[in-house]
Amino acid sequence: MTEPVFQPSGVVTLLTDFGLSDPYVGVMKGVMLSLSPKLELIDLTHGVPAQAVAVGAWHLSQSWMRFPRGTVHVVVVDPGVGSERRILLAERDGHVFLGPDNGVLDPSLDEETVVRALDVERFALPGASRTFHGRDVFSPAAAALADGLDPSEAGEPITSWERYALPVGELDEAGAIHAAVLYADSFGNLITTVEAALLGDAAWSVEVGGESIPLVGTYAEVEVGALLALVGSSGTVELSVRDGDAAARLGAGAGTAVVIRPSSSA
Amino acid sequence: MTEPVFQPSGVVTLLTDFGLSDPYVGVMKGVMLSLSPKLELIDLTHGVPAQAVAVGAWHLSQSWMRFPRGTVHVVVVDPGVGSERRILLAERDGHVFLGPDNGVLDPSLDEETVVRALDVERFALPGASRTFHGRDVFSPAAAALADGLDPSEAGEPITSWERYALPVGELDEAGAIHAAVLYADSFGNLITTVEAALLGDAAWSVEVGGESIPLVGTYAEVEVGALLALVGSSGTVELSVRDGDAAARLGAGAGTAVVIRPSSSA
Amino acid sequence: MTEPVFQPSGVVTLLTDFGLSDPYVGVMKGVMLSLSPKLELIDLTHGVPAQAVAVGAWHLSQSWMRFPRGTVHVVVVDPGVGSERRILLAERDGHVFLGPDNGVLDPSLDEETVVRALDVERFALPGASRTFHGRDVFSPAAAALADGLDPSEAGEPITSWERYALPVGELDEAGAIHAAVLYADSFGNLITTVEAALLGDAAWSVEVGGESIPLVGTYAEVEVGALLALVGSSGTVELSVRDGDAAARLGAGAGTAVVIRPSSSA
Repeated sequence: MTEPVFQPSGVVTLLTDFGLSDPYVGVMKGVMLSLSPKLELIDLTHGVPAQAVAVGAWHLSQSWMRFPRGTVHVVVVDPGVGSERRILLAERDGHVFLGPDNGVLDPSLDEETVVRALDVERFALPGASRTFHGRDVFSPAAAALADGLDPSEAGEPITSWERYALPVGELDEAGAIHAAVLYADSFGNLITTVEAALLGDAAWSVEVGGESIPLVGTYAEVEVGALLALVGSSGTVELSVRDGDAAARLGAGAGTAVVIRPSSSA
Repeated sequence: MTEPVFQPSGVVTLLTDFGLSDPYVGVMKGVMLSLSPKLELIDLTHGVPAQAVAVGAWHLSQSWMRFPRGTVHVVVVDPGVGSERRILLAERDGHVFLGPDNGVLDPSLDEETVVRALDVERFALPGASRTFHGRDVFSPAAAALADGLDPSEAGEPITSWERYALPVGELDEAGAIHAAVLYADSFGNLITTVEAALLGDAAWSVEVGGESIPLVGTYAEVEVGALLALVGSSGTVELSVRDGDAAARLGAGAGTAVVIRPSSSA
Repeated sequence: MTEPVFQPSGVVTLLTDFGLSDPYVGVMKGVMLSLSPKLELIDLTHGVPAQAVAVGAWHLSQSWMRFPRGTVHVVVVDPGVGSERRILLAERDGHVFLGPDNGVLDPSLDEETVVRALDVERFALPGASRTFHGRDVFSPAAAALADGLDPSEAGEPITSWERYALPVGELDEAGAIHAAVLYADSFGNLITTVEAALLGDAAWSVEVGGESIPLVGTYAEVEVGALLALVGSSGTVELSVRDGDAAARLGAGAGTAVVIRPSSSA
């Protein structure tokens, strides 16, 4: 098998914690279009909670493979901006990733991924700020790569970078999985990173805040307004209220402990 | 007159209750671009309140005709996802609509609209989830249609589907119109679906929460900070505060009763 | 030197106070694509606080030059919609600007800018509303200009319009600069329009709400959770908390007074 080579599709995705109430994201797009006018710029989301590297890492790991080969994925969740932290350029399965060296890219990479330290000097705009590398470094680098620059010309390969593994939960001797909520989505669904593959065909329930909630197959299996646990669209366990908001109902959010237990009756 | 035939323009609009703080919308775009790289993907809005089918129906009915013929409109306000509810594919005036069979499309359709039940099996991605049909069913179907698939190949015609009429208000014997607020927009304007055509040239005032508010022609007719009613940009009655927030001022929102009364002096 | 002539790039930016929870922005895009299908439509931001002309003016002045020459910038922060206020069409350095005559464009213009009063009658859609000129006037005019209409055909030159200067702070006899927060961004950074060029190489601290906060070079110079002042990415003074929210910490926001003082020890 020959290694997949990056051939740009012209698609660039943007994943940040910048929100949309300021022009930060718009300005990044201006910089990119000024350098490469034909790009297709797609917002993955800009709603990562401020500096929440783990949430950004999760979103990227669940999303990048949905885009066409040849996509450049730009990730700016970057509490270390202005420090000496490196910017990583990674290449996997015909996709390119740009992100700070803080773990945010790591769960999306595999053993065959080539990782480079971006040559920041090469790409930084004149008068680059120390607080907005999204505009002054990431955007020009992304535009160059999406425009055909070979990743091998954009930085030297490295073998060591910040690692981050999404938490999979801890199994206790009774067969229960102890985990935590990663974040609440905008519906109030409480998302964990415990993978369905761990659960097999057994019956399970999820304990959170003193409640025991059955794991079912789909919303329609419970009454409107009832709590349920299910395997969400990313293949991990999440908690919901049918047509409602589980985060509000349970007073739960990022970090809330959950225990996934085998049900006594299957 | 020959029937308008759908000839795709490459434009796809997205109308959902997903919000923008999660990557759900971004991932839908990735799926579509993977199947058809040249699409122009336009967010109509993703700020429909969760599961608010009536608000989604209203937004679509006021917006679709602003887009070029050949547009595919994808509507995912879908509390029944995972149940047996069908997905509708409708064709009207050279536009195509995809949405769940829960009434959300209905106010946008007319008597000549051809409605089909989407052949979900044909379009569903391998391993499709039961909770995210936006990604796994709507997006691949939309991409195929926007790429030139004839709607007649995407599902069988049906003659019965979930109907929904936007409320037009009820006239009492005194000539007053009893209605309700459909939703508050982001300015705090209180939007109703009572059409201006009902009002003719007479003078009216609107009662809400004990206040009687004159219907005027434009914001500039009242003082800054004053309440007013006017015919909004969609041709229906709405309540505003000039340079202010009527929802906050009146403590009103979706469902608040309003009475539109002929004024004693015209 | 010959004067730069506007040659459209096909890029249109949108800057409004409409938010994204309603379809107002999406509908503007529909109108533009109906008139000119190949446009590249970029959201600068729609999160300007309602009717906050000063914030819109600031965002535009910091952003327009990041886009390619040939861009049309559409600005709809327009509390006077429906009144007799004019719509301005300005041309500078190969960019075109459309906005209401309320000062929102002014800080982005220079002495060589040609300013015209848009011929509203020419562009207004049939049945144009009195409350949504973004859809009914700005969008059709922007599409025509982005499609190649010469600005000189879109309105008559004018020599007088609403001026607005972003506040630069007032110097007192002790050498301190008295200013105010323009707005808080989504990270809680408190942005002022006091330009770094005023500060030279001296050491400064910023007083706000009884706290005296040192001006440093980058976030990494202080501890996580500490207050700092720095020159932000737009070249003006702002207040931050490292990995935190200065607006929340200081209970500050738009209008909060700040005093920038020379430090006793440099």
